[in-house]
Amino acid sequence: MSAFNINKLCIIGVGSIGGSVACALRAAGCVKTIIGVGRDTENLEQAKALNVIDEYSTEIKVAVDGADVVLVATPLGAMQAVFEELASCLPDNAVVTDVGSSKQHVVDAVRKAFGKLPKNFVPGHPIAGTEKSGVEAAYSELFQQRRVILTPQAETDKAALEMVRQMWLACGAELVEMQASHHDEVLAKTSHLPHMLAYALVDTLARMDDKQEIFDFAAGGFRDFTRIASSDPQMWHDICVANREQLTKVLHAFNDDLQRLTKAVENADSDYLKETFTRAKKARDKFCE
Amino acid sequence: MSAFNINKLCIIGVGSIGGSVACALRAAGCVKTIIGVGRDTENLEQAKALNVIDEYSTEIKVAVDGADVVLVATPLGAMQAVFEELASCLPDNAVVTDVGSSKQHVVDAVRKAFGKLPKNFVPGHPIAGTEKSGVEAAYSELFQQRRVILTPQAETDKAALEMVRQMWLACGAELVEMQASHHDEVLAKTSHLPHMLAYALVDTLARMDDKQEIFDFAAGGFRDFTRIASSDPQMWHDICVANREQLTKVLHAFNDDLQRLTKAVENADSDYLKETFTRAKKARDKFCE
Repeated sequence: MSAFNINKLCIIGVGSIGGSVACALRAAGCVKTIIGVGRDTENLEQAKALNVIDEYSTEIKVAVDGADVVLVATPLGAMQAVFEELASCLPDNAVVTDVGSSKQHVVDAVRKAFGKLPKNFVPGHPIAGTEKSGVEAAYSELFQQRRVILTPQAETDKAALEMVRQMWLACGAELVEMQASHHDEVLAKTSHLPHMLAYALVDTLARMDDKQEIFDFAAGGFRDFTRIASSDPQMWHDICVANREQLTKVLHAFNDDLQRLTKAVENADSDYLKETFTRAKKARDKFCE
Repeated sequence: MSAFNINKLCIIGVGSIGGSVACALRAAGCVKTIIGVGRDTENLEQAKALNVIDEYSTEIKVAVDGADVVLVATPLGAMQAVFEELASCLPDNAVVTDVGSSKQHVVDAVRKAFGKLPKNFVPGHPIAGTEKSGVEAAYSELFQQRRVILTPQAETDKAALEMVRQMWLACGAELVEMQASHHDEVLAKTSHLPHMLAYALVDTLARMDDKQEIFDFAAGGFRDFTRIASSDPQMWHDICVANREQLTKVLHAFNDDLQRLTKAVENADSDYLKETFTRAKKARDKFCE
């Protein structure tokens, strides 16, 4: 850890993820100054009061001056505009990385903003986070033993990649590299689809006349199952739009399966029900515990 | 608590629910002897070794002799046969209750087995349990502050109802009474539908070629979301069949909503996505925390 040091870290978007990176790097003792950027000065003041950041600016070009690492941790929908500003003011040697949940979208946004892919840009995505958002949900252990997926491009500089790897290792994360499109496919299945189901379930029930009673009788399983439906709506809107190609594919696959299961329930098709439930239980017990 | 006492409790089906009732009543000091009934002597031996039951029999007619309360806690699919045996050997004064997740089905099974609804039968359902099954998952605190729904019928004797109420109060539960059909509708929405979605999601992913990788990248949210897919397949098969009328209805409603959401993702319909997610988050935050 001792060799790795960031003199000035600029975090654009100081929410639960950006804030947790700040906390983790600070806890690891490998960052000197952290400057936060955002539009909401109240949030930035809070981040400063919580000692998550040292200082802040609402202007990207002020904040990135002299930064050796720039972390873009805004919702996906705000990234295009952020990269467009960065294109005109990014210091030559600064390494840029992001935490977006849809990598192809981010790579395309950066390419469009800069006219080409800067060699110091390293696309990344930590597979971590909770349903809570905002800097008050930030904590230094969030990435401990969590995976971070990096999707370096042909243009990506080896030293920049190593810098970002070291940053995440200092946060306690494990690193994996894969293609951006493959990342998007895997995340559509393991994260984006479950979020759609949780949101859709709660919404279906919440629009029923007896919703008060329904939620009154919801037990522990329901709470666990729907926890992710408390996630930030704007963030998930952005993810859906950014990764809509992959997400649409898995939603269609799931819709087909759910209609088959519905028919099996309707017809009391014992074989189908037992086979499906047994296969699912076996898979979940094997892979998840 | 002191006034309420069971001399001999007979539990037919000593799994996580039946076993937890035994543990809770024993901990409350209001039961003298507990006899377990089942087909699996290994499980019954284990229940005895764990001090969940005092003795056991594989024959209902032996076990119910002299019992003042009989608790039927088998999977729903086994209940018809259990009630048919009980019809020929139940002591006149014994109170019978059950823990089935579909009340109309149980009421119908009892009526069919006995030729009419016995006045000492009190249909019940504790809204508690985990994804774990078997007597080793039983513990005395399972029902603490959990709701138990009773669905007494026109024929149900007031004293029998009071006996079952006292039994659950001694377990630490809160009691609610409602119509059997209404219970089935509420449970289809809050419990049976989420279980279908969790099973279907894990099964959809488990049948994909890259399933190993998919589960490798599943994060905390996925684990929570799919926990209920580790539930007992036979038990859930039985619930689906017993409550298929209500469950089919809510599955159709959910299917329609999910297809609308899928179309919204496909078309990047921002208004629809934001409205749905916001409504869901608001409902979940309000009702579940």
